[in-house]
Amino acid sequence: MANKSGGLRGAVVADSTSSLVDGENGRLIYEGYAIEDLAEKAKFEEVAYLLWNHRLPNKDELETLRAAIAQQAAVPEQVFNILKLLPKDAEPMAVLRSAVSLLSHYDADAENLKDKAVAQQKAIRLTGQITTLCAAWNRIRQGHDPIAPRQDLYLAQNFVYMLNGGEPDAVASDSINVYMVLLAEHGMNASTFSSRVTTATTSDMHSAVVTAIGTLKGPAHGGANTEAMRMFLEIGEVENVKPWFDTNIKNGERRIMGIGHAIYKALDPRASILRGHAEALAKSSGNTKWFQIADDLANLARSDDYFIERKLYPNVDYFSAILLYTLKIEPEMFTPLFAMARIAGWTAHIIDQMGGRLIRPDMNYTGPMGLEWTSLEDR
Amino acid sequence: MANKSGGLRGAVVADSTSSLVDGENGRLIYEGYAIEDLAEKAKFEEVAYLLWNHRLPNKDELETLRAAIAQQAAVPEQVFNILKLLPKDAEPMAVLRSAVSLLSHYDADAENLKDKAVAQQKAIRLTGQITTLCAAWNRIRQGHDPIAPRQDLYLAQNFVYMLNGGEPDAVASDSINVYMVLLAEHGMNASTFSSRVTTATTSDMHSAVVTAIGTLKGPAHGGANTEAMRMFLEIGEVENVKPWFDTNIKNGERRIMGIGHAIYKALDPRASILRGHAEALAKSSGNTKWFQIADDLANLARSDDYFIERKLYPNVDYFSAILLYTLKIEPEMFTPLFAMARIAGWTAHIIDQMGGRLIRPDMNYTGPMGLEWTSLEDR
Repeated sequence: MANKSGGLRGAVVADSTSSLVDGENGRLIYEGYAIEDLAEKAKFEEVAYLLWNHRLPNKDELETLRAAIAQQAAVPEQVFNILKLLPKDAEPMAVLRSAVSLLSHYDADAENLKDKAVAQQKAIRLTGQITTLCAAWNRIRQGHDPIAPRQDLYLAQNFVYMLNGGEPDAVASDSINVYMVLLAEHGMNASTFSSRVTTATTSDMHSAVVTAIGTLKGPAHGGANTEAMRMFLEIGEVENVKPWFDTNIKNGERRIMGIGHAIYKALDPRASILRGHAEALAKSSGNTKWFQIADDLANLARSDDYFIERKLYPNVDYFSAILLYTLKIEPEMFTPLFAMARIAGWTAHIIDQMGGRLIRPDMNYTGPMGLEWTSLEDR
Repeated sequence: MANKSGGLRGAVVADSTSSLVDGENGRLIYEGYAIEDLAEKAKFEEVAYLLWNHRLPNKDELETLRAAIAQQAAVPEQVFNILKLLPKDAEPMAVLRSAVSLLSHYDADAENLKDKAVAQQKAIRLTGQITTLCAAWNRIRQGHDPIAPRQDLYLAQNFVYMLNGGEPDAVASDSINVYMVLLAEHGMNASTFSSRVTTATTSDMHSAVVTAIGTLKGPAHGGANTEAMRMFLEIGEVENVKPWFDTNIKNGERRIMGIGHAIYKALDPRASILRGHAEALAKSSGNTKWFQIADDLANLARSDDYFIERKLYPNVDYFSAILLYTLKIEPEMFTPLFAMARIAGWTAHIIDQMGGRLIRPDMNYTGPMGLEWTSLEDR
């Protein structure tokens, strides 16, 4: 029987400068900078540099990191060849989990467990490679060959390029960049925490990232963005929002996927930024239906006593689903894209945890004592 | 900076009947039964049944489980074909992590996230398949084809069979069975805990087991048995034990791998059972050198003030290294064999955790506040 109070809320596992998730006031800060500033002004590489080095890069440092990520984003041919053997309908997060695990077999530094400078290089490599893997699986599952990363692009541009080839669309690239900045880091969330537990046994970075991917995969964590989009698709039309809400939520037992958050008891600041980008993108794409469905549903919830009393607001998954869907990314690929952003935060925490203490909480033994062995014949 | 007090020791994450690790008194109990009774009398399948069902099976129930594990131990040809593509010198725990992740793509129940009866079937399947994968990788890395499991054997016998083919040696099979019984479960250890963190996001069982494998892989957890054997091999001869101890431990800065445990402040009860089996096996094999080196080194430590004061005793890894090495299993394969046993406990905890609360502890934000964004040109 799972202990209902076993969520470890309030147990402090680490000091960290990475981010402050201020749930009461709806604020998110990375290394001292407000998320609103970063979302408006920073490249994803700038945020990765900030999380890894605890300060913003200058122009040369940013270009060096951009180039390093672009170069090391190449995925070994052997891994692509294995991905092509997998069933096309394999769950994309499970594929990403397999793919990152497989990367370790071709990484000469994989088993270097203690050197933080080497770990930093692996963080750069994995940050590039996960973007390549996300774009590659999106193509492979549709029967296309993957596209290798370009050396001259920022990572968000490279992702858009690797999805379809050709010149990456600027609006799409900027939207992906904002998405990646917003999702890059978020305190001691479950996937980050689990990657620290893995690291604390002196295990390797690939193992820790694989742990994080498997943990993010759950619908109660990163999987929620896919679930949110499936809900919008089920609603289907703007005029269905009210009756759907009345039937399923008001008089039903379902939850609105993407509304409510473990920490935020005010509006998730990422949600309002994403709402703006999702709206602009929808308008420029000429199809505002999905944005309208999401926005109308959020407004219904906002004026409903149940949601007001419980302080349930749209979280990061809610409008990011609309943003990604408008970019023609299929819902099953949403959670891999969450991982593609969060790898920056994960690796910052993993490097921070290296050399730290084994993480091993306790359990209450509630079983019997002193049972006597009986032979098989006497049972 | 990692918080040195961040090990969560004393934070209770769950109630469980699975096992009591009584470190003060050197006792280990599974579901009410003393480990000494189980090691002497139980088949591994009996222990798996006990952990999954909270009681011992009768004769029919044991045979049903034995047959189910043997049948489902088959690994899909597609996974074997991928393993054959990997570098032969790939780290075996990393290979096991990849292989279990890949299994999910061929498991029709992989994405069933909530049904505990289905989860129990997956636990049976993974328990069989991990044994097959361990034997298979041991062969593939040496350039041989894997051997499929037999339907008529217990799992420990099947492992010995799949290593080399032919009739499984009874002494070897019994030794592996004892090893697997002793390693099957051990409270809220780091790998078990991390698999619960993954499960608590409603993620799937394959993800949770992959997390556990990656966490066990660390030298501060399951990786210690390999490290212990490497140390014995470095000592090399019985007459080197005393000078090696004096140079490296008494007057040096090294630790004895496999001595000392996070929880046990008395003798690890598994260590004394394994010592007996390792000694018997060494004698019957005609080569007692490695046992003697380990035993002499343990005796030196036992009479040394440093070890006495800190209550440092041989743990499960210490004599299990000798037992496995005498069975001609290479040190790099020791940690996968740990996983092959612990899968029973992992899956019991995973099923227990299903439907439980998100596990999400806190961190202390120690970074700056209110930093103002400066443009790239001004940095």
